[in-house]
Amino acid sequence: MIKITFLPDKKNIKVNKGTTILEALESVEININAPCGGKGICGKCKILINKGIATATPIEEELLSGEEIKKGFRLACQTKIFEDTVIEIPSEIRLDFKRVFSSNLKGDINRIKNNFSLGTNLKKVFLDLKKPSLDDQRSDWGRIKNGLSLKKIENISNLKISVEILKKIPILIRRANFKITVTLYNNEIIDIEKGDTTKSSYGIAFDIGTTTVAGYLVDLNTGEELSAIAKTNLQNIHGDDVISRIGFTQKRKENLEILQREIVNILNEIIKEIVPQAGVNINNIYKITIAGNTCMHHLLLGFNPSYIAPSPYIPVIKESLNLKAKDIPRLALEPTVNVFMLPNISAFVGADIVAGILAICMWKNEKISLYIDLGTNGEIVLGSKRKMWTCSTAAGPAFEGARISSGMRATEGAIDKVKIDNKSIDYRVIKDGKVRGICGSGLIDLIAELLKLGLINKSGKLVDREECKPELSEEIRKRIIKGPKGNKFLLIKSKETESGNPFFLTQKDIREVQLAKAAIYAGIKILLKEVNISPEDIQKILLAGAFGNYIDKKSAIRIGLIPYLPLEKIESAGNAAGRGAEIILLSEKTRKICERISKDIKYIELSSRADFQEEFIKAMYF
Amino acid sequence: MIKITFLPDKKNIKVNKGTTILEALESVEININAPCGGKGICGKCKILINKGIATATPIEEELLSGEEIKKGFRLACQTKIFEDTVIEIPSEIRLDFKRVFSSNLKGDINRIKNNFSLGTNLKKVFLDLKKPSLDDQRSDWGRIKNGLSLKKIENISNLKISVEILKKIPILIRRANFKITVTLYNNEIIDIEKGDTTKSSYGIAFDIGTTTVAGYLVDLNTGEELSAIAKTNLQNIHGDDVISRIGFTQKRKENLEILQREIVNILNEIIKEIVPQAGVNINNIYKITIAGNTCMHHLLLGFNPSYIAPSPYIPVIKESLNLKAKDIPRLALEPTVNVFMLPNISAFVGADIVAGILAICMWKNEKISLYIDLGTNGEIVLGSKRKMWTCSTAAGPAFEGARISSGMRATEGAIDKVKIDNKSIDYRVIKDGKVRGICGSGLIDLIAELLKLGLINKSGKLVDREECKPELSEEIRKRIIKGPKGNKFLLIKSKETESGNPFFLTQKDIREVQLAKAAIYAGIKILLKEVNISPEDIQKILLAGAFGNYIDKKSAIRIGLIPYLPLEKIESAGNAAGRGAEIILLSEKTRKICERISKDIKYIELSSRADFQEEFIKAMYF
Repeated sequence: MIKITFLPDKKNIKVNKGTTILEALESVEININAPCGGKGICGKCKILINKGIATATPIEEELLSGEEIKKGFRLACQTKIFEDTVIEIPSEIRLDFKRVFSSNLKGDINRIKNNFSLGTNLKKVFLDLKKPSLDDQRSDWGRIKNGLSLKKIENISNLKISVEILKKIPILIRRANFKITVTLYNNEIIDIEKGDTTKSSYGIAFDIGTTTVAGYLVDLNTGEELSAIAKTNLQNIHGDDVISRIGFTQKRKENLEILQREIVNILNEIIKEIVPQAGVNINNIYKITIAGNTCMHHLLLGFNPSYIAPSPYIPVIKESLNLKAKDIPRLALEPTVNVFMLPNISAFVGADIVAGILAICMWKNEKISLYIDLGTNGEIVLGSKRKMWTCSTAAGPAFEGARISSGMRATEGAIDKVKIDNKSIDYRVIKDGKVRGICGSGLIDLIAELLKLGLINKSGKLVDREECKPELSEEIRKRIIKGPKGNKFLLIKSKETESGNPFFLTQKDIREVQLAKAAIYAGIKILLKEVNISPEDIQKILLAGAFGNYIDKKSAIRIGLIPYLPLEKIESAGNAAGRGAEIILLSEKTRKICERISKDIKYIELSSRADFQEEFIKAMYF
Repeated sequence: MIKITFLPDKKNIKVNKGTTILEALESVEININAPCGGKGICGKCKILINKGIATATPIEEELLSGEEIKKGFRLACQTKIFEDTVIEIPSEIRLDFKRVFSSNLKGDINRIKNNFSLGTNLKKVFLDLKKPSLDDQRSDWGRIKNGLSLKKIENISNLKISVEILKKIPILIRRANFKITVTLYNNEIIDIEKGDTTKSSYGIAFDIGTTTVAGYLVDLNTGEELSAIAKTNLQNIHGDDVISRIGFTQKRKENLEILQREIVNILNEIIKEIVPQAGVNINNIYKITIAGNTCMHHLLLGFNPSYIAPSPYIPVIKESLNLKAKDIPRLALEPTVNVFMLPNISAFVGADIVAGILAICMWKNEKISLYIDLGTNGEIVLGSKRKMWTCSTAAGPAFEGARISSGMRATEGAIDKVKIDNKSIDYRVIKDGKVRGICGSGLIDLIAELLKLGLINKSGKLVDREECKPELSEEIRKRIIKGPKGNKFLLIKSKETESGNPFFLTQKDIREVQLAKAAIYAGIKILLKEVNISPEDIQKILLAGAFGNYIDKKSAIRIGLIPYLPLEKIESAGNAAGRGAEIILLSEKTRKICERISKDIKYIELSSRADFQEEFIKAMYF
């Protein structure tokens, strides 16, 4: 055994010789960004060897610069440790564990009321029961049932009660001196408490993404969102896309359980924080709703996702599931809590899209709209209340910063807006401070600006200095630098970055963006063809998620990510999936609407269509 | 730590100094009869110290004879061990772990058909499904559902399926090459198997008694009972009646779980034996039904039984429970197996009585009958289809052999019939061989015979030799022996017994029987009074259980255990509780009948009635 020390945490761990640094990091629970899941492709998991020897592997030689290797930088996934070693974790590769964002539901109950019929199907009833005596030997449960019938609860004889609740009853009702509050959900008793707690009913809506998991705690009486928390999906360590995660489950039998535990752990972490943050009693959480992509849905339930990934892409189930907390191993909620798993649409169009469609009301709008949820996969929905079509395209993680030389996610230090005039470059950094990279919306701006100035041509080539328009200033022109793998454009000079290295936009970066935007645009084109309409017939484009919040509409049109439409018809849909999950907590009837959306929507499988390939190639051009 | 060796098992255990022998026996899983649960009252747990020193305690001095103490006999519950010791366990105190008896259902399906409408609500459907392709991307579950709808299964859209079954599906259906058998119970999928298994459906009926637990494996297609097994309830170690067991749960918080585990272990042992014995696949067991007294019902489910024992005797629930195997911790059946817990009537009239009433058809008979289930408690039911009344009386364990000097349960070596004429004593021994004691039916015979000969008078006194009728032979007369605690009657001479000690009927034994029979008879009297009829109005007396099988009706009437009625009106009901539980497996509609029996029967609480005390004292006389 040898010892590894991680700085600046000062965490130590003893491991077997030959352990990779990534494995060791996992053991000490330091979470770093490893988008390719340790395959040695992305080159993102750069750490610094402070003390100890680690010869650079051929993969490291390729992915790291000569200077980096000299300084002691290595890839955590590639470097195996054979002696006591001290390793420094640069702050830029750490996963920012907690990000807070709201689903914008707060105070929104009236707007919800307009579109959805409210009703939680929960009922809390306070009972002041007669005590038992030799003349009144009703069982504890019989006594409670009679008490409920006096309160005019319907259908008493069909009331269900679980073993868990029955177990609690004898001690509880005596401690409560027979004054209790009974909670009913549909026709089942799901809680019995001491005293009068009729005012306290809460639910949590979850949106489980491949990258981020969000939870929203909602007061079921007032409809108010009391608290919202988002955390990084720590399954990241097994790769940043669902295909890597599915691949991981196939390596060893136990891995499915590992991924299941990891997701539940994140939900539990969110619960542990969000409940005290909202100042409520965890026992008064009665319902949760869960949206997420199909793979996350399967992993949470411990369903084998093996047949999602290869053609013909078959999930275990698409329908919604009405479960109890006890059905999800290790979920830290009372076993009787109702768990509604939203329905999926297909292997790659998941419950989060159903939640989004619910929230944006496409299912009840007369006019045709286009909904785009852009992550590693781009899910696209086109339609109206009459009929909806959807598809999923593998856009790749370019817009999330992966596979882009200076790419990063939209967090602190990321450039999220870029403006270039003839002479100078202007940009905005999230939370200001030193620049650490460029995120998706910044990248789109940058390419749009370079297109406008003619520095990138129609085929995506970063032109040579001499090819530039004559009116272009020397300042901009000289940022074009020739290299062995094509030209690159100097975006940020070394003095302005945190690492002290300059940031470039490389020819390869542009190709990655072209692949991503072409996938999305070709998907949109195929849907338009299916529906037999032209782009002008689209009444509204809704962009989902954080990306939709930050993206510059003009830039998105210019690079050809979305069709050309008047700007007022393009909107951010906010965190539509999270809001959809919240709406279901408050409006029980929307469960059926979700089921109908999932069942009636027409899913278009792009992989089997030759015309998608044609559209894709066409869309590569700017 | 010191070492204890048990003979003849040659089992060793290391224990702390001061451990009692009973505790050590529990650890090595040697099961002995300890009816009082280690309180030092019954004096039954006699073991022999072979090597090692153990000073007799005052309790042992009282409960053991001087000679026994000299020989090295001690009480396992009283003797603490402080040095390496070798202990011999006499065979007569061992619990015979396994006894087989049938519920007589075998081949009885036609008789059941006459009284009960058959129907298991189970359906097995074989499906040969189309394989998935890019043109047919239905989910696994969607594919199965469509397959079922082609087979005209009704209400497909409301079919339920559990997470457990969904988990199995993806691998299973592919291994099965999409040829599967789906099992439906009501509107839920409870199993999916490879290939065609439509012919295999089984259920197990359990009857959980305080002393014995029985299981019956039934073919749900043919109605045949394939196998039956009974085992001793190993909770015995905590006392032989429910009050001792409840007391045990109150000593430490963990004890409730210990008792829960012990019961489930017995069920699991039965399952482990009965399934291969019947030659079936454990995965084809789809339903179980559970009858048992209220305390066993609570302990199995982990319900706190604390409020059953003290006045006003309140159970947690009386209603039946429709559960799944997963609701019973550690039960070794597929989690989706349906578990029907029969309803209870009161704290001391349990689900076994409901099962008995179902089986003997009291609920549909015009004529009034009396049903008696005699164990430690005597449960009595009087009535007809119009109305039923019931009560429970604390008869004590005399008829089960406890608290009787030579008493034992009705197993190998027990005298179960006694005949005395003027000169000689004739008796029958279960499985012949050496005599080990006398069981309940033998005891009733013995007292009836002694009453007939005038050796016991009306008040229950065993008369002096000189008080005997002059015509009594000297042979019988000289068996009366004077002692410090009243007379005793020599039943078996030393040479005929296994232990080499003679067996007596003592004055105290007679008092125990008087207490027991008076309790039963007074209970019957109170029910007759409630119903406002006289004994002659009873059309039939049904005696339940093993006791009812062996008891001599004439003797039972003579000692005043049951009312005087023409002998042809008195019948053994066999193992009615077990048969009732089997019937429910085959006739789903009887679940509602059970519920109605439990709800409509009038329970009479004897402890609150002054007239019960009067009747009890009157009934003490012979």
